[in-house]
Amino acid sequence: MIVNMSEKATEKEIAHIIERIREAGYTPHVTRGVERAIVAAVGNGRRHEIEALQVAPGVDNVVAIAQPFKLVSRQVKPERSVVNVGVGAGSVAIGGPGVVVIAGPCSVESREQLISTAHAVKRAGATMLRGGAYKPRTSPYDFQGLGLEALKILREAREQSGLPVVTEVMSTEDVDIICEHVDMLQVGARNMQNFALLRRLATVSKPVLLKRGPSATVKEWLLAAEYLLSGGNSQVVLCERGIKTFETEMRNTFDLAAVALARDLSHLPVIADPSHGTGKQSLIAAVSRAAVAVGADGLIIEVHPCPERALSDGAQSLDFAGFEKVMKAIAEPLRGAAVPAGAEADVA
Amino acid sequence: MIVNMSEKATEKEIAHIIERIREAGYTPHVTRGVERAIVAAVGNGRRHEIEALQVAPGVDNVVAIAQPFKLVSRQVKPERSVVNVGVGAGSVAIGGPGVVVIAGPCSVESREQLISTAHAVKRAGATMLRGGAYKPRTSPYDFQGLGLEALKILREAREQSGLPVVTEVMSTEDVDIICEHVDMLQVGARNMQNFALLRRLATVSKPVLLKRGPSATVKEWLLAAEYLLSGGNSQVVLCERGIKTFETEMRNTFDLAAVALARDLSHLPVIADPSHGTGKQSLIAAVSRAAVAVGADGLIIEVHPCPERALSDGAQSLDFAGFEKVMKAIAEPLRGAAVPAGAEADVA
Amino acid sequence: MIVNMSEKATEKEIAHIIERIREAGYTPHVTRGVERAIVAAVGNGRRHEIEALQVAPGVDNVVAIAQPFKLVSRQVKPERSVVNVGVGAGSVAIGGPGVVVIAGPCSVESREQLISTAHAVKRAGATMLRGGAYKPRTSPYDFQGLGLEALKILREAREQSGLPVVTEVMSTEDVDIICEHVDMLQVGARNMQNFALLRRLATVSKPVLLKRGPSATVKEWLLAAEYLLSGGNSQVVLCERGIKTFETEMRNTFDLAAVALARDLSHLPVIADPSHGTGKQSLIAAVSRAAVAVGADGLIIEVHPCPERALSDGAQSLDFAGFEKVMKAIAEPLRGAAVPAGAEADVA
Amino acid sequence: MIVNMSEKATEKEIAHIIERIREAGYTPHVTRGVERAIVAAVGNGRRHEIEALQVAPGVDNVVAIAQPFKLVSRQVKPERSVVNVGVGAGSVAIGGPGVVVIAGPCSVESREQLISTAHAVKRAGATMLRGGAYKPRTSPYDFQGLGLEALKILREAREQSGLPVVTEVMSTEDVDIICEHVDMLQVGARNMQNFALLRRLATVSKPVLLKRGPSATVKEWLLAAEYLLSGGNSQVVLCERGIKTFETEMRNTFDLAAVALARDLSHLPVIADPSHGTGKQSLIAAVSRAAVAVGADGLIIEVHPCPERALSDGAQSLDFAGFEKVMKAIAEPLRGAAVPAGAEADVA
Repeated sequence: MIVNMSEKATEKEIAHIIERIREAGYTPHVTRGVERAIVAAVGNGRRHEIEALQVAPGVDNVVAIAQPFKLVSRQVKPERSVVNVGVGAGSVAIGGPGVVVIAGPCSVESREQLISTAHAVKRAGATMLRGGAYKPRTSPYDFQGLGLEALKILREAREQSGLPVVTEVMSTEDVDIICEHVDMLQVGARNMQNFALLRRLATVSKPVLLKRGPSATVKEWLLAAEYLLSGGNSQVVLCERGIKTFETEMRNTFDLAAVALARDLSHLPVIADPSHGTGKQSLIAAVSRAAVAVGADGLIIEVHPCPERALSDGAQSLDFAGFEKVMKAIAEPLRGAAVPAGAEADVA
Repeated sequence: MIVNMSEKATEKEIAHIIERIREAGYTPHVTRGVERAIVAAVGNGRRHEIEALQVAPGVDNVVAIAQPFKLVSRQVKPERSVVNVGVGAGSVAIGGPGVVVIAGPCSVESREQLISTAHAVKRAGATMLRGGAYKPRTSPYDFQGLGLEALKILREAREQSGLPVVTEVMSTEDVDIICEHVDMLQVGARNMQNFALLRRLATVSKPVLLKRGPSATVKEWLLAAEYLLSGGNSQVVLCERGIKTFETEMRNTFDLAAVALARDLSHLPVIADPSHGTGKQSLIAAVSRAAVAVGADGLIIEVHPCPERALSDGAQSLDFAGFEKVMKAIAEPLRGAAVPAGAEADVA
Repeated sequence: MIVNMSEKATEKEIAHIIERIREAGYTPHVTRGVERAIVAAVGNGRRHEIEALQVAPGVDNVVAIAQPFKLVSRQVKPERSVVNVGVGAGSVAIGGPGVVVIAGPCSVESREQLISTAHAVKRAGATMLRGGAYKPRTSPYDFQGLGLEALKILREAREQSGLPVVTEVMSTEDVDIICEHVDMLQVGARNMQNFALLRRLATVSKPVLLKRGPSATVKEWLLAAEYLLSGGNSQVVLCERGIKTFETEMRNTFDLAAVALARDLSHLPVIADPSHGTGKQSLIAAVSRAAVAVGADGLIIEVHPCPERALSDGAQSLDFAGFEKVMKAIAEPLRGAAVPAGAEADVA
Repeated sequence: MIVNMSEKATEKEIAHIIERIREAGYTPHVTRGVERAIVAAVGNGRRHEIEALQVAPGVDNVVAIAQPFKLVSRQVKPERSVVNVGVGAGSVAIGGPGVVVIAGPCSVESREQLISTAHAVKRAGATMLRGGAYKPRTSPYDFQGLGLEALKILREAREQSGLPVVTEVMSTEDVDIICEHVDMLQVGARNMQNFALLRRLATVSKPVLLKRGPSATVKEWLLAAEYLLSGGNSQVVLCERGIKTFETEMRNTFDLAAVALARDLSHLPVIADPSHGTGKQSLIAAVSRAAVAVGADGLIIEVHPCPERALSDGAQSLDFAGFEKVMKAIAEPLRGAAVPAGAEADVA
């Protein structure tokens, strides 16, 4: 931490900062410039006491030097983590050599809807199934999910298809019952900083899929994951799902560079959600390819037997044929480099 | 709802939309233009079924006409609501003729810290006390609040000072114990769309202070309030606390126009939080004045006996003298209009 | 400037940074912590050479300590600047004791439209007239302004009403002709970083109204003003007009805290544009009051004889009666503080 | 266009809207719902007159149905456009089957710097050269480019290397001299809505590279291109270069979905700029691959012989070895799909 004194700071004010840095458990180092002094806090003390010094007299601002997260950092663990979902045959390794594709409906609406989807996405190459039982809906008048009934259907779909299942958890009170029925628990974007929920999930033995909040910085997202790891659960997969910006043609701005950055900063696997990332059926294939190219360890894609009859997220859901096309698209080679006109002539 | 057909839509596709609108419980009305047709869904049907039609063949997009919230709307209840906090002498009416000022530390750190602050802010003119017992912190390594001990200190501070008390609730599991100790429960910005928490708070008999999420639109904020009203709790006060933008000199962008807009759209009282709205001690007085001028029903301001020693939010907390200055600032008259050079000459 | 070395930086890499800091004209100061070293560049050297060191081996990042602007800064000139617009009787001082109100149509559409507006806004208390001759329009098919004809009408309106006139300049080629006809030149939000235009305007003898870009930080805005001052024109007034965010109910997010911040950081006068700031007729009165309360030195408001027939910006323009209401609103006293129930009882 | 009447609109107000729609050259169609009426404006009239009706009495809002751009739209021209840059051997087709890679320094700093870079990037596979002569710099104290001297060096580099050259134009006054020296003119992000410049470039015979503004929606970007096409220049290439968001770890948020969307909406070629898109050397390879995968017709990448000595944009520039690695990265196949544990067992 560096305390940047103002140009008008007095010697007394500088002395006060030096004393406060010592009190906070750091060693102070002063550097005097032409116009101002800076005081570095060296060592491992109480960080918040230095942060609060930005309101001390004579201080312009306080600058943090080190990243605030630890256990999720590649500086602590340089090798990449692999998170296993499910048990036995059919279990899936996220963060391994292959791209994991999780597919299924936004909400579980009926037994038939989910089971048919499970078989269809498996046939097309998906290795995991998604489906919402408890739905976070912006309006209280929208469909809120089938709850326990959906959990039972998800369990049956897993048994029939062999695909491990992930579903969203919205409340600490539902954690136990969800753990009984599915293989992985998802923290939705709007709950990324629901710290009570994170602390509870840190104590379960199932892996957690942690979505990035719609206005969370990459740093805040990693700190949310730090809640899980520091609480005892290191089976964490990060998921980029788009952030909110001024653009209105798409539901969100899909931040694919954040996938690369999160993989640079952290050893945790990172997957991407092109359905929420764009909110537009017609863009899913292109951005899914991009997500794979940027290094994502997996994709999570919304698929519904009949999107125009979906109870939620119809506009961004693919039907079975659409999902098959996406699976083919992510297997196609990248477009090659252009050749100048002259080079073409050379060939002839 | 209006379904906007694409220029290439076939008659068969239009007929399909007409049929689906009927199935969804609406009456379809077709308007044919030179280049395209639009089909309006008239009446009160199942909204999501129309929304999902944006992926039906031949459809360009679907446009909602009416606002999605109901009970919070001024169209349903044109007269302004007043929310009473506390009981008997000392109780405060938010949304009444006067501006309510809620002040206190970000976190309750000790009995002495809170009691001294309660007396100081009361002396300066505050009518309610704030103080965090359960703290939502971005990092798991930051101070997480004193919990139940803090609740007891808050209760004592209320008894000594007579000021009604508000504190944040982060989890459904803490709702009962918090209701026992304080007068008003705050939903923090990061929990604005924690729907499990909202549903639980809809059933309590205490008023709720609902902060706007850092990336929530005004519409989403009002829909979060709709969860409370539709669940049975109409004692809701909205609080603007800044949104996240690209600006880096301030912690958030304080959206004061949203205070005016929320008061236009809803009958609920709206207060403003200049401390989080700017994150900068030096700006609190100016933006507090602006919040009052724009029509806010109250202010919530962080005050600490010694901000540079605060365990959280020190950079945006005022000391007692600073808070007194803010209270004076909001009482000062507005600057008058400029007079042209010629007019001044006239006077002389 | 501080060069923050990574935890794994070698002694050779630190030595390289020290040498490069010397080459760039600064004195290097090294502080060694437990985990890493930081190297401060002290003095006045070539800033960009230090910035570029963030890609040197062993470097984590480079942090700037001092603000990059100089002439616009209050550290250079603590007393507030006053900018005089117009000459003789009727000239207006922006940044003086009174709030300057600039009013008029988005575009000059006809002689009658502008002259009637000039008289109406003067009657209501405006001290300056605005009107667009060259219009920056998002679509090439929208009305692009009357050009020279509009300039002549603006000149006549000034002669008839006595109100100094401001109009937008979009191109270096129009600077001379505009200077001949009006009293102040406006740089529109989309041209805030049109550096060729700024450099040209630095050489004129008329004052400049510099709007903040829709995604400009306060620092970038002040640096745009620095182009004008460093080029020789210190008659600069800043104008906040809303920034682009995710909110869709309003055209922009009106950043009133930025008005206070800009006045803290700079000695230049700062005015606010509630018309573009919100894009909503119904909010203008409330946010105009807020702008005055936050410390704005003036307002610029769009007024049109018949907004629903305006060729541009009709939705945010006021008619004459609406403008009169705004002028009254900014003169009304602020709402007083709430009194607790007990206190009311005491009085009785 | 649809005029959405408020629930309280009177018959007289509806009649007024019907009349105004006729005056504006459209045919009105009224649909009456249970709670409100909507009036559609059918045909081709004066759009702005309908937009302005949102302030007419009894109107809630006005909704546009059709996209506002025409010549750039794929509805007008479904087949993709190809833009040829340069003449004869060495000319490059952007929008053809191959990915065009444009590489070179942010600024031309010296003859030696540019010529050595031209040879290096050509060797690594680039097909065009970039280099700034006139630099848009946030601060007036930063390096502003070598101007005409740089243009001459660019011309020499093209002659020596055979690579067509693109450089940025900042002012209408420089258009002619730049056209004489280079093959393609770039409109920088901050000038995307410099309409005077766009109108001037609509009249030149050289192709234009139009960068997306840092806060421009895709629609505004396409409308900026519409200025060029409607003015007579259809040789336009779009370039996504990142937008401004709240994220601070990267310079911008690289909006790769916008590349796919722009290619869906428009027939113009779209390239991507990973250097500005992220501002981080370490992320260029990953996001370049993603840009190719999402469908970009080309890449523009900053390369410098020694980034840590660059006069501008050092932090995001690659050295020659780094650029070679990126060229290899975009040729590597995509990662394949994951195989469940059971499937692996099956193989054995």
